[in-house]
Amino acid sequence: MGINLTNFLISKTKNKKMNDFQDLDHIDGLSISAVCANLYKDNRDDLVMFYFRDGANYASVYTQSKIISENIKWNLKQNSKKVFSLLVNARNANCFTGKQGFKSLEKIAESLSQKLSEKQKVDEESPKKIKPKEIIFGCTGTIGETFPEEKIKDKIDDLVKKISYTQNKYIWTKAALGMMTTDTQPKMAMEECEIGNTKVKIYGIAKGSGMIQPNMATTLAYIFTDADISNNLLKKLLKKNMSSTFNAITCDGDTSTNDMVSFFSTGKIRHSKIENINDKKIVEFDNALNKVLLNLAKRVVADGEGASKFITVNVHNCKTEKDANRIAFSVANSPLVKTAIAGEDPNWGRIIMAVGKAGIPIDLDKLSIKFGDLIIIQNGKISTNYNEDEVKNYMREENIEIKIDISCGSKNFTCYTMDLTKKYIEINADYRS
Amino acid sequence: MGINLTNFLISKTKNKKMNDFQDLDHIDGLSISAVCANLYKDNRDDLVMFYFRDGANYASVYTQSKIISENIKWNLKQNSKKVFSLLVNARNANCFTGKQGFKSLEKIAESLSQKLSEKQKVDEESPKKIKPKEIIFGCTGTIGETFPEEKIKDKIDDLVKKISYTQNKYIWTKAALGMMTTDTQPKMAMEECEIGNTKVKIYGIAKGSGMIQPNMATTLAYIFTDADISNNLLKKLLKKNMSSTFNAITCDGDTSTNDMVSFFSTGKIRHSKIENINDKKIVEFDNALNKVLLNLAKRVVADGEGASKFITVNVHNCKTEKDANRIAFSVANSPLVKTAIAGEDPNWGRIIMAVGKAGIPIDLDKLSIKFGDLIIIQNGKISTNYNEDEVKNYMREENIEIKIDISCGSKNFTCYTMDLTKKYIEINADYRS
Repeated sequence: MGINLTNFLISKTKNKKMNDFQDLDHIDGLSISAVCANLYKDNRDDLVMFYFRDGANYASVYTQSKIISENIKWNLKQNSKKVFSLLVNARNANCFTGKQGFKSLEKIAESLSQKLSEKQKVDEESPKKIKPKEIIFGCTGTIGETFPEEKIKDKIDDLVKKISYTQNKYIWTKAALGMMTTDTQPKMAMEECEIGNTKVKIYGIAKGSGMIQPNMATTLAYIFTDADISNNLLKKLLKKNMSSTFNAITCDGDTSTNDMVSFFSTGKIRHSKIENINDKKIVEFDNALNKVLLNLAKRVVADGEGASKFITVNVHNCKTEKDANRIAFSVANSPLVKTAIAGEDPNWGRIIMAVGKAGIPIDLDKLSIKFGDLIIIQNGKISTNYNEDEVKNYMREENIEIKIDISCGSKNFTCYTMDLTKKYIEINADYRS
Repeated sequence: MGINLTNFLISKTKNKKMNDFQDLDHIDGLSISAVCANLYKDNRDDLVMFYFRDGANYASVYTQSKIISENIKWNLKQNSKKVFSLLVNARNANCFTGKQGFKSLEKIAESLSQKLSEKQKVDEESPKKIKPKEIIFGCTGTIGETFPEEKIKDKIDDLVKKISYTQNKYIWTKAALGMMTTDTQPKMAMEECEIGNTKVKIYGIAKGSGMIQPNMATTLAYIFTDADISNNLLKKLLKKNMSSTFNAITCDGDTSTNDMVSFFSTGKIRHSKIENINDKKIVEFDNALNKVLLNLAKRVVADGEGASKFITVNVHNCKTEKDANRIAFSVANSPLVKTAIAGEDPNWGRIIMAVGKAGIPIDLDKLSIKFGDLIIIQNGKISTNYNEDEVKNYMREENIEIKIDISCGSKNFTCYTMDLTKKYIEINADYRS
């Protein structure tokens, strides 16, 4: 399960860097520790600590759900200028755990901040006293189960002991594996770019494969840069790039209580100062960030539960981007479109249906639809070149691209999803039986 | 496939009349003919004519899709006070058929109106000249295929020859069967009630089982009464009763280009005149109409593709009915909720997820959830009486009721759906392969 993203990314981008897996190495100012806290029955890593010895600027975006997990409540409450640690656990979403879940985080943050302050005394020239509010949390897994406070607290010593000031691809992979729930593949991505004439890095890791864990899973994505970017600018860059990346993917249309994407800047690289979001020196960095986010987002879709095909839905030439977005998601979330693609059936009638139900006024005489480069509908009529065998052949590919041209404006939107297979039902219907 | 609605309806309503199948008999002023026009390869009825010898008042509601079929365009164009015939065909949705599809309807209406006018001359004391615009159409089946004008025209003589002025349960069943596409069961419902002290009938037939035909299927429902109700009042009654019936069901969240619910009044029964929608004499009729619509709507869900369970989602005590509606559909359309129920898994975490993603502010401390009469969540906490075995046992039933109490207002909404099974994928992914 989970399709081969390498083929997809290589064929789409012709970019060597996008190969599975990119080798993430060192980002100055960041340390990663991963341990097994026995949150699962099998002996796997399930607790990952990201530690910033000099603190990091940061910004986060969270789930739009009206029911949010206790760790997101915790994170929203903290308003310290810098964070010193992000602690991520798998297996338990810390959602619907009430006061117990929140208090557990308080106690863990207390203990961890104390141990990290002691570590500072040993390792740093000017040791800092780290406060509980300078720690944030990522949680993912089952909801409604007591949060395993003791098991996590018991591992804090171990996490702190494992702090190393040089990172390599092994520790990144260990961290990505430690965050996984029903994911079948760890998810990492990287870009290097310049600010002014100075090279900086943007590294990211993520987990997520649909809303599919016993009670639910989540998307968590953490992006790290050694550039020096203010909290305010991190927030703006993150928000700006979400709509075309993590907000452009859908596995099953369901939304988790725990979704969290965070962006950390260690500021270890000295480069020309960025004044604001309109500063031209940020353009390359902005593009690189988009690539990292999009790469991770695509990996989440490609690892979607039961996925046998990766689907790209391009909607072109709408009056507004919002219209294009609504049509794209109406197609990408339609069970009838997704099952047809699973069955390798070039069933354009269902695409028409899904375009229509999006609720955006359409001039049928201007509508065009392509599968890949094959024209199906042109100006509201079946193309004279339509060749069912050719299209059927295309449907056998692993990467399916649907291009819908509305021809009533100039705004576009692209979203990504996977097909809907029996395997999805099997995984989700049979999980606890 | 398709679950046994008898058990459901009997258990829910304790109403003998709701048994499968109710025996619909005669409605004065209506004649039904059904023939095989060879629209399918197998020799089945696929063309059904409803004929009103003295015309009928009528009102219709149509799909909200922005792409609509040619027959709906035709129907919307006609504004005659009475209709004399409704002609329904299966196999071809007459959608994305362009000018050919619309012109075909023109020609069929011309021919049918002429033959019916001839019939009037033979049978009626004061024969009427029926006009093409006094005929409306229902179409259901594949989209994007040439509309079979000739095949249908060839059968007009036959349809007119078969006109009988007395109807019985056999012709109703034949009509319901003739409208079916991937339905596995014909769908009929009836109620009798009084206006003033006069008995009147409300009969209905429908087709639909998800959006599932080769390219798509549709819901068609036609309601007939012998009461004398104005067009304006028919429209108001229909609109008023849609939200709790046909707009309260979902199979897969997809919407067809052809959905159509029409209400016809032959006016053959003399009863005290109904002045307007607030007239107290209409209350019983209004309730009976709701029962017929709800009965048919439930039959559509119960016959949903691959359905193994019938699911009722009750959302109670919201601030507005719209809020309750959004939460109910968020749960009913969630693939994760639907697969969990297919797997007989009391996975209340997914219900929480679906409630949260509806976007309505929720006070978690007030939230309660029941499966049937079993309390799962009470005031935001797992109930102290929660017994996993008991709940698992409940999940084995064929009719699952989810009750969600938001406790922040007084408005409710109930919707109906079915579970999501491997069979659904099989039917929809493998159809043309």
